[in-house]
Amino acid sequence: MVNPILVEVTRGERVESFHRGAYALVDAEGKLVAAAGDVDWPIFPRSAVKLLQAIPLVETGAAARYGLDDGDLALACASHSGEPAHVSRAGAMLAKAGLDKEALECGSHWPGEADVARDMVRRGETPCPLHNNCSGKHAGFLLAAVHRGEETAGYVGPNHPVQLRAKAVIEDLTGHSLNVDVCGTDGCSIPTYAAPLRDFALAFAKIASGRGVEPQRAEAGQALMRACMAEPFEMSGTGRACMAMMEAAPGKVFVKTGAEGVFCGALPELGLGFALKIDDGARRASEALAAAVLAQALEGGDAGLAEAFSGMARRSVENWRGTRTGEIRTVLPAD
Amino acid sequence: MVNPILVEVTRGERVESFHRGAYALVDAEGKLVAAAGDVDWPIFPRSAVKLLQAIPLVETGAAARYGLDDGDLALACASHSGEPAHVSRAGAMLAKAGLDKEALECGSHWPGEADVARDMVRRGETPCPLHNNCSGKHAGFLLAAVHRGEETAGYVGPNHPVQLRAKAVIEDLTGHSLNVDVCGTDGCSIPTYAAPLRDFALAFAKIASGRGVEPQRAEAGQALMRACMAEPFEMSGTGRACMAMMEAAPGKVFVKTGAEGVFCGALPELGLGFALKIDDGARRASEALAAAVLAQALEGGDAGLAEAFSGMARRSVENWRGTRTGEIRTVLPAD
Repeated sequence: MVNPILVEVTRGERVESFHRGAYALVDAEGKLVAAAGDVDWPIFPRSAVKLLQAIPLVETGAAARYGLDDGDLALACASHSGEPAHVSRAGAMLAKAGLDKEALECGSHWPGEADVARDMVRRGETPCPLHNNCSGKHAGFLLAAVHRGEETAGYVGPNHPVQLRAKAVIEDLTGHSLNVDVCGTDGCSIPTYAAPLRDFALAFAKIASGRGVEPQRAEAGQALMRACMAEPFEMSGTGRACMAMMEAAPGKVFVKTGAEGVFCGALPELGLGFALKIDDGARRASEALAAAVLAQALEGGDAGLAEAFSGMARRSVENWRGTRTGEIRTVLPAD
Repeated sequence: MVNPILVEVTRGERVESFHRGAYALVDAEGKLVAAAGDVDWPIFPRSAVKLLQAIPLVETGAAARYGLDDGDLALACASHSGEPAHVSRAGAMLAKAGLDKEALECGSHWPGEADVARDMVRRGETPCPLHNNCSGKHAGFLLAAVHRGEETAGYVGPNHPVQLRAKAVIEDLTGHSLNVDVCGTDGCSIPTYAAPLRDFALAFAKIASGRGVEPQRAEAGQALMRACMAEPFEMSGTGRACMAMMEAAPGKVFVKTGAEGVFCGALPELGLGFALKIDDGARRASEALAAAVLAQALEGGDAGLAEAFSGMARRSVENWRGTRTGEIRTVLPAD
């Protein structure tokens, strides 16, 4: 099937570009509450499932042993902006297990937010692995490995216990076995496994609701979810969409972006989870659609909050002189 | 109609994201030599028609009066990277008519190439309108206005003679009248008019071939096209796609990128023009598709060159550690 157009970008009175995609909003039994497009599409969830990948950090007892606070747990689920606070926290997490940035196997990159990168240049800095948007997740992987007495070198490999634990959690929560034929390598060098879009939504609904999942796992996932909602800066960055959405609804909404137009999220009070992917991988579209899905989930419940997210699903586009040239807007199919 | 998938982005063995779009490769009579998707789709050509917008700079005699060389003419057709050589050339062009950067109405922005922006920070610079990727085009507009004794203030407005001349050239070459109902505002504040994709291809075929267009106009367009092919750095920037494609086939290929996934180009020796747009506006896709269209145009003629462009239409994607994660590849329909 051809996925429907879900996001339009206008210029003047015309639609200039548009984005197709699919999304699924589900309860913990996997029932579709709202959806569009091919919800059985096997997608790489990329960074949108960092929370699921961090569950073993809690389950192994490593988080407790090293005294990780909410900020640390949020950073372990983060695609952070590489701001100084992120970088120093990632370093401090590693230090708790006697490690430093040399242990990280995620690679280095300049922060994706141009203003953050320019500030680094002004301070005379160059990127190290701590600046990698995944450094908190990798610090979490390493803490679990040290706690369990495992070799740290090679922890990004698909057969290292760290990655096997992360895979097992995702298999449990999605109900899919993840084999080599659906395995790709992520931007930070760890394996990423494709599974149907709707099943990633289900995984987050299970965590959010605590239903259909063993209590210890639910508790671990919920601890991470609460930490992200409490410290949205740590799992995102200044001015970014995940932070803005979680700040708009404290404790009511969890969202996490992933590369190539993926978003996952949950509404803990409603026990719902969602997942979405834009066909073409555009972030501008995935961000708008995530807000629209949240608005749809909150409709009929919290009308004020639904309206706030509807507002975030539609934004004006200005040119270099500040003149409005058009807008980015979602066009969800009627319920 | 739903445009076909023309570009795929893979991860491991799977297609992770994909881009739909349309393209038309035509001769000066408008005959489709190759095409895919809805070639009658009215698109905003954006910066891909800067060469057409610069034709009045030559036709009015301003280029001759101010002694513009090939580098200047190329910069007048450019979406440049804001590198020091671009910035100083734009300033020098303005100075020929006694103007400076204060006359520019394009707005300021940091260069889109992150390394160019970081180099600016290292030199303690901040962006001014000369860094705007359109500053050369705007300098050309202003030179024509001064040469003709027109008010320079407000030259970006749709009813200023500068914009009326640019519109008239595009109307002539595309065969479409461009009215307010198809008018949007471009990133640099000038009007941009939507017209069918195939007609932009036709405009470039007419210039490239000199057929179906009055000789003086063909000559003006060809002077600009030769200048761009001779000085591809000036109309693009270090490491960028337009520069790479024109350097791969000196004097044989003209290409110009535009925002929102547009590309236009021409093959002067073959008398062909092309235009393409990616539905979702992705540059990674428009660049790959432009190379594939050039390869298709050159097939059966220059096999070596066709192969070179086929190679540019398919590129490996690596992650932050340099590990190959997949590729970007075009999937053109069979002829």
